[in-house]
Amino acid sequence: MKATVMYGAGDVRVENVPDAQIKESTDALVVVTRAAICGSDLWPYKGMPASEVGQRMGHEFIGIVEAVGKDVHKIKVGDLVAAPFAWSDGTCEFCQQGLHTSCLHGGWWGGTKLDGGQGEAVRVPQADGTLYPLPVSRDHALMPSLLTLTDVMATGHHAAVTAKVSPGKIAAVVGGGAVGLCGVIAAKRLGAEQIIFLDRHADRIALAKEFGATDIVSERGDTAVEKVLTLTNGLGAHSVLECVGYEESTRTALSIARPGGTVGRVGVPQDEAMPAAMPTFFRNVTISGGPAPARAYFDELLPDVLEGKIQPGKVFDFSGDISKVPDGYRAMNDRKAIKAIIEF
Amino acid sequence: MKATVMYGAGDVRVENVPDAQIKESTDALVVVTRAAICGSDLWPYKGMPASEVGQRMGHEFIGIVEAVGKDVHKIKVGDLVAAPFAWSDGTCEFCQQGLHTSCLHGGWWGGTKLDGGQGEAVRVPQADGTLYPLPVSRDHALMPSLLTLTDVMATGHHAAVTAKVSPGKIAAVVGGGAVGLCGVIAAKRLGAEQIIFLDRHADRIALAKEFGATDIVSERGDTAVEKVLTLTNGLGAHSVLECVGYEESTRTALSIARPGGTVGRVGVPQDEAMPAAMPTFFRNVTISGGPAPARAYFDELLPDVLEGKIQPGKVFDFSGDISKVPDGYRAMNDRKAIKAIIEF
Repeated sequence: MKATVMYGAGDVRVENVPDAQIKESTDALVVVTRAAICGSDLWPYKGMPASEVGQRMGHEFIGIVEAVGKDVHKIKVGDLVAAPFAWSDGTCEFCQQGLHTSCLHGGWWGGTKLDGGQGEAVRVPQADGTLYPLPVSRDHALMPSLLTLTDVMATGHHAAVTAKVSPGKIAAVVGGGAVGLCGVIAAKRLGAEQIIFLDRHADRIALAKEFGATDIVSERGDTAVEKVLTLTNGLGAHSVLECVGYEESTRTALSIARPGGTVGRVGVPQDEAMPAAMPTFFRNVTISGGPAPARAYFDELLPDVLEGKIQPGKVFDFSGDISKVPDGYRAMNDRKAIKAIIEF
Repeated sequence: MKATVMYGAGDVRVENVPDAQIKESTDALVVVTRAAICGSDLWPYKGMPASEVGQRMGHEFIGIVEAVGKDVHKIKVGDLVAAPFAWSDGTCEFCQQGLHTSCLHGGWWGGTKLDGGQGEAVRVPQADGTLYPLPVSRDHALMPSLLTLTDVMATGHHAAVTAKVSPGKIAAVVGGGAVGLCGVIAAKRLGAEQIIFLDRHADRIALAKEFGATDIVSERGDTAVEKVLTLTNGLGAHSVLECVGYEESTRTALSIARPGGTVGRVGVPQDEAMPAAMPTFFRNVTISGGPAPARAYFDELLPDVLEGKIQPGKVFDFSGDISKVPDGYRAMNDRKAIKAIIEF
């Protein structure tokens, strides 16, 4: 089968690899129908040391179940299923709390040992806990929006939930990638009255406004902080969604939270330490967030997608078949595309 | 009148200063009956650059109201009152939320412009919002425990509340100073089933056990982290109370929180950056806390003190009149005393 393998910074290839197959009795074999390239896939694309072995890529996919192991009981052959960006057993202490990304028997797609979503088929461990059956056909018009539930929309929602966005309050979204844009959708959905979007790219700003952003701050650093304070009566936002992960964006996010406010961070931190620990302390700012338990959010978000209340699929502005994966990485890395969808 | 003035590291003096007096119509003049020396007073005692002017010290005190300004209506002459470690108007947006330490018209005691609590009298700004009348006489036996409500017991409680201590769960308290010890009281009071106390001083460990600690970890650094994990089935604590503020203690606190757990930090951070931002992200650990809104907690904690349900006054193991203030600083700094009470 064909799959995406990354061999180093800027070196991503579509290659023939051994066919995915069931190994454990709790596995399912899923033939991929849609996959996406994630902003977090760009971290290795920017900086991965050259490797002869390479690593399999992709953690957002939808597909059809072709086979299941003998201990898989909920998922059935023929089901159209969505796979969240982490796999999980659905039964451990953390899964029961809704924190599937900390599953005691779970893990992450791709790498050197597992299939990735940017390929023709995937062995899915813990299939009953991991996969979410979708009540639509494989080429339903809502497929792009449904695909975002595997990561970016769930992640934007997680940012908003952990930042405690609530009705009538002020939310600020730092970073206008696909996750930040989904963060705007999530903040609007949870009732924020004012949504400040911090980004400087015209295409993203236009989409953010369509999704519900009320104010745009295109400056960076201290100037951005000052502008947000001006927009919030000098106090800052109740809820801040950090959707980047760089030191500067984190500092901005922490600096624009008002006293007693909360920052929900979902951008993968690129530094070991966190800036601004002292000023956030004196303002009693809470810092929350982490990898979104996307599996936990399907029940809440899926109905809104099916009813057309939210349209996160609009973040996709690049599409192609699997041969176009390297082009998709390049377009996203050059900021010529927000997010790429791969159709099989 | 006599008051405590610090002129530099290790140089704290009791001196004659101009008498405290009412300046604003919202002021009260309070004659101090009890004051305390705080662990945070030791930060300047360790590192303050020499100063000819000096700064007035003390932010924990109880006293009798001797006079009030014309716009003070709730507080009356003759009231015995407790003053939390920050003054606040009680009416602004943040006070109404219970976050009095971020009062828009509040501030901190001492320094170069205001009286400090370690003196014979104090001009109290925003008296109606700041002071809390106590329903006892000035030399009531519970005075030490009542005095802790102005800071350390409130701060330990804030650590527990922001760390989301809840019934049946595991709490860990990092740092066995007076605040950490009060954190043990607070964790027990809020129903924690297992309370792990991290400190290595015998006197503090004994008091922590009396207050409800179930496990003691006297190691530091990675060894402490390993031991806490061993005590918690490999998972870590649900709630961690950071009661020190150093880089190492913060790293320990962040490292022993389980996935989805929460760290309540009340130790004043001594570094601009926070360690372990990346591992806490991957575990979805929430970092909360800050200066305790002690004023907000009187209503909840006072009844428990008056009924003898909690006895935080036991943290005082040094007492004396105002002439003994320098000795109190020295004893606390040398770890020969946990906390000093000054009786007037």
